[in-house]
Amino acid sequence: MKKIAVLTSGGDAPGMNTAIRAVVRRVLFKGLDVYGVQNGMKGLIRGDFIPMDLGSVGDIIHRGGTMLQSTRCEEFKTVEGQQQALNQLKENDIDGLIIIGGDGSFKAAKILNDRGLPTIGIPGTIDNDIAGTEYSIGFDTAVNTAVEAIDKIRDTAVSHERTYVIEVMGRDAGDIALWAGMCTGAESIIIPEVGYDPTDVIDRVKQGAKRGKMHSIIVVAEGVGKGIEIGEMIKQETEYDTKVSILGHLQRGGAPSAFDRMISSQMGAKAVDLLVEGKKGLMVGFKNGKLIHTSFEEASEEKHNIDLSIYHLARSLSI
Amino acid sequence: MKKIAVLTSGGDAPGMNTAIRAVVRRVLFKGLDVYGVQNGMKGLIRGDFIPMDLGSVGDIIHRGGTMLQSTRCEEFKTVEGQQQALNQLKENDIDGLIIIGGDGSFKAAKILNDRGLPTIGIPGTIDNDIAGTEYSIGFDTAVNTAVEAIDKIRDTAVSHERTYVIEVMGRDAGDIALWAGMCTGAESIIIPEVGYDPTDVIDRVKQGAKRGKMHSIIVVAEGVGKGIEIGEMIKQETEYDTKVSILGHLQRGGAPSAFDRMISSQMGAKAVDLLVEGKKGLMVGFKNGKLIHTSFEEASEEKHNIDLSIYHLARSLSI
Amino acid sequence: MKKIAVLTSGGDAPGMNTAIRAVVRRVLFKGLDVYGVQNGMKGLIRGDFIPMDLGSVGDIIHRGGTMLQSTRCEEFKTVEGQQQALNQLKENDIDGLIIIGGDGSFKAAKILNDRGLPTIGIPGTIDNDIAGTEYSIGFDTAVNTAVEAIDKIRDTAVSHERTYVIEVMGRDAGDIALWAGMCTGAESIIIPEVGYDPTDVIDRVKQGAKRGKMHSIIVVAEGVGKGIEIGEMIKQETEYDTKVSILGHLQRGGAPSAFDRMISSQMGAKAVDLLVEGKKGLMVGFKNGKLIHTSFEEASEEKHNIDLSIYHLARSLSI
Amino acid sequence: MKKIAVLTSGGDAPGMNTAIRAVVRRVLFKGLDVYGVQNGMKGLIRGDFIPMDLGSVGDIIHRGGTMLQSTRCEEFKTVEGQQQALNQLKENDIDGLIIIGGDGSFKAAKILNDRGLPTIGIPGTIDNDIAGTEYSIGFDTAVNTAVEAIDKIRDTAVSHERTYVIEVMGRDAGDIALWAGMCTGAESIIIPEVGYDPTDVIDRVKQGAKRGKMHSIIVVAEGVGKGIEIGEMIKQETEYDTKVSILGHLQRGGAPSAFDRMISSQMGAKAVDLLVEGKKGLMVGFKNGKLIHTSFEEASEEKHNIDLSIYHLARSLSI
Repeated sequence: MKKIAVLTSGGDAPGMNTAIRAVVRRVLFKGLDVYGVQNGMKGLIRGDFIPMDLGSVGDIIHRGGTMLQSTRCEEFKTVEGQQQALNQLKENDIDGLIIIGGDGSFKAAKILNDRGLPTIGIPGTIDNDIAGTEYSIGFDTAVNTAVEAIDKIRDTAVSHERTYVIEVMGRDAGDIALWAGMCTGAESIIIPEVGYDPTDVIDRVKQGAKRGKMHSIIVVAEGVGKGIEIGEMIKQETEYDTKVSILGHLQRGGAPSAFDRMISSQMGAKAVDLLVEGKKGLMVGFKNGKLIHTSFEEASEEKHNIDLSIYHLARSLSI
Repeated sequence: MKKIAVLTSGGDAPGMNTAIRAVVRRVLFKGLDVYGVQNGMKGLIRGDFIPMDLGSVGDIIHRGGTMLQSTRCEEFKTVEGQQQALNQLKENDIDGLIIIGGDGSFKAAKILNDRGLPTIGIPGTIDNDIAGTEYSIGFDTAVNTAVEAIDKIRDTAVSHERTYVIEVMGRDAGDIALWAGMCTGAESIIIPEVGYDPTDVIDRVKQGAKRGKMHSIIVVAEGVGKGIEIGEMIKQETEYDTKVSILGHLQRGGAPSAFDRMISSQMGAKAVDLLVEGKKGLMVGFKNGKLIHTSFEEASEEKHNIDLSIYHLARSLSI
Repeated sequence: MKKIAVLTSGGDAPGMNTAIRAVVRRVLFKGLDVYGVQNGMKGLIRGDFIPMDLGSVGDIIHRGGTMLQSTRCEEFKTVEGQQQALNQLKENDIDGLIIIGGDGSFKAAKILNDRGLPTIGIPGTIDNDIAGTEYSIGFDTAVNTAVEAIDKIRDTAVSHERTYVIEVMGRDAGDIALWAGMCTGAESIIIPEVGYDPTDVIDRVKQGAKRGKMHSIIVVAEGVGKGIEIGEMIKQETEYDTKVSILGHLQRGGAPSAFDRMISSQMGAKAVDLLVEGKKGLMVGFKNGKLIHTSFEEASEEKHNIDLSIYHLARSLSI
Repeated sequence: MKKIAVLTSGGDAPGMNTAIRAVVRRVLFKGLDVYGVQNGMKGLIRGDFIPMDLGSVGDIIHRGGTMLQSTRCEEFKTVEGQQQALNQLKENDIDGLIIIGGDGSFKAAKILNDRGLPTIGIPGTIDNDIAGTEYSIGFDTAVNTAVEAIDKIRDTAVSHERTYVIEVMGRDAGDIALWAGMCTGAESIIIPEVGYDPTDVIDRVKQGAKRGKMHSIIVVAEGVGKGIEIGEMIKQETEYDTKVSILGHLQRGGAPSAFDRMISSQMGAKAVDLLVEGKKGLMVGFKNGKLIHTSFEEASEEKHNIDLSIYHLARSLSI
């Protein structure tokens, strides 16, 4: 192992830069060479390799987004694209590759690894929907961003005795909604893992009103249904003043939280250490509070499990 | 002048609590009695008067929303409602009233004042669309909230080379959009005072792309047109990856900024001082950096003027 | 078990209010009665019991500090004080007690438990120095506060090519310093668990300068030595422009982070569930990513172990 | 006027980057060339000129610190240093210079201007102690940072019924202390313009305690006296639990507030416009809410006046 390359793929997440910094500096600490690949898989195919040194990753530990950028890449789905990527890696003498990204990125990682290029994955997505890890890079920051936004909306909810339906990110996974709902004391949390029950939502809003609490917060994961429709439903079924807010893309950005910087640094360095030890075809992750690694096969067979005890706890506390 | 009452009306704005604190404590400092009216004009009609002391406004200087709450009130638009409000004020021996709110609230304030109850208005609305003042309570906080959100979205815009259309609040006034756009270096700012020119928006996005800047931020005031439609237009006219984000109600909440706490404190105290001096029918405000007051008549005849030099400056700097 | 009381003891920590909310609402959810004790052990001795209902803990999930307040109490260290506390608990028909606090608080908790009052402890201290748990309430928020402050100071460090010594909280435990240092890319982290080696600090500052990095951040836990002395030492040993900043008490306050709200909610509810199940003499905690509980005996025999792998990782990445 | 150079001098302030961006882009908008000078006056003497284009100031509008860096420079105080700076400017064909900085910087600006190089000053310092302007770049951000920190400390003050003495920045000017104290409802504000009266401080703390308010916040400008001594004095004169917190250098950093971005953009562009119009020897500023300019002479004769009506208002409201 002499030259290691790193790239980010899929949607950006706060902490990706911290992970890039950790990869680059850990490689240099081990006395090897390191390259960044720009624009994800597209850059791999095009050969956008940049040599990195200590200074390349100076002053980025706290920046949101990804300095290596990321774009969708249809081309890699073809055998030609894959071959082209492998050729580029060979031409640039890359012995090991680290891919920071989500589920889709690991499928690409597995292909490259199977075809001979030692590859390690690092889970980076705010959605936290990756099997093989309890936390992915960006999740903690996204939850904090959502929580701060909902805290602000609560000011208006209380002042105007209003019901707010707040749609947060999470297409297939309800983790952001679950955490944001628990942490803001939401009256209802609607997540794909449990499903949407209009009667239950209405009941809980009315229960609150019965005991004098005239404002309600309902947090819904985008994957379940449109916040706007749920808002309409509440307006029709009750007389309450109801508004809808879609938090949207601000959840993807911002300076990473301390927790995200910590796991990004640990995962980045671990990925390098694994490659240096001759390991490959693995995704690093956190499980039971420990830094672990899983094979791409295992990770792809598993399903990311949401902790439903949080869901039930939230219900018992926002009675 | 022995008893002064204070209420908040219209949409809530950060700093309203700071202004309530200033009113209450200034009245007490002057040795008089002070009452809070809950739920705006509705509470006035229902007689929701609460006696306030120093402790009533302890620990609220930094809280968003309004502790006195605010609701729409159709009833006050009728002569009966107005009479009922005046009766309640008389029954509670109120000699002077301070109303913190927006344009609509001052119409109500003028009616009460004209019918014999000395009334002073304090401009409180994030939209900053009130004539007779350069700044209304909540505007600075709302702009900062929008700016922080757009800073976050920019992380993703840069990482993915994307165009973002960001819709901010402001139905009739483009102040939030203008300030947020200027302060985040937006490529285009779309405000009702100038109007929406699709060709210009497209031209500026393309100009940026031509010189290698593959991400763009377009800030649009809700009053001009739907952010979603503008996003669709850009997608159709260009090949750029374009997303839309509607910042929504989070702009109304949060701890007030220092500037909002300052003007809220100054305006709140000034309103009390004016009543104590025997003045009435006035709105306090800031003009040319000074605390001033205007009669309700003058204020209603004027129009809030947006500073279009900022618009042209922003265009020259985001070339 | 019919009546449960809850109190906060020791230094305040963000998330204590979230834990109080969880305790109160979980007790009510179980159909029992709940009391808050004000002013910690002092209030217990004086009998400051307040009946709590759902509304008592409304709108506090996100507030820093502790609504039940906390004060030092010398009196409880005497047998008379302890007996007085037990008498008050008996007179108020309290069957179970939940104490949220730090190490010292759990000694008190053990005494009450041993003398017959079923007691459960919840670890709440920003220092994270409690055995039997990997995270205590307030730690994550304090680290984020320190990280945000150091991010700001870095702006000036870079602009002026300066070395900054930043003293963070942590008397006996270096956790805040370790996390804050790792998460801000500090050149040196000085913690009591490793000790202070002036030669090493100077070497690392000089190494950075040799490769052209003219600014350095040194994070020091207050327990190791005075930041001011370390700053003086650097000024004497090098020619670098060096400043010292003591972050101080702002680290204790602020809205709790999402993570702190999550563990506070979980620990609060778990403490109630344990009492209801007839358990006692236990402290709840987090280990290996799971909610656990330890007996007061075990917890007091153990030592909180800092994760020194983070220390070595930080050194390898800030080369 | 063909080539304009810009530099930052003195202590860094949030918004300096925004002003650099405005200067650079406004010059380019006018069709002229623009250079950045690194490291302030020292860089001017050494000839650290960098040609700037649109991209040079991309993505800096929201960054704290100054990308052009700033250092103290003893050399410029000598006639040789000044001549050397003028030679460098001539050799690089610079026709106009813009200096962003504080009082000391404008003395240097005047010397260069008097010796034939058209120079314009932009007030940039968090202390807000510059005559000829009501607001200098960085002040609004610093006040907001101080206010947020004090809001956090208040959580602990309330929870523990403690008195906090909080020392903020401001050597000769009490503006930060005055604003921060007003905006956080401090019981006492100690500023150089009024002086420190121990009896008054004690009286106000005791008054608060008498009416049941057991926590106090005292904000002191560093210029008046050491926070630590004031804390000691209170401890000796009262029985109150008293702590001291020195906010320190975190007040200098961070993303600039919206207001600071706005005035930085306006002042930066105005400075360019003045040079292009053939004006020189002027400092831009804000007075009576308007963008103005003053000659270096006038500015140096004036004194920055603090608004003492705020001081008296704060006292009347924190009774």
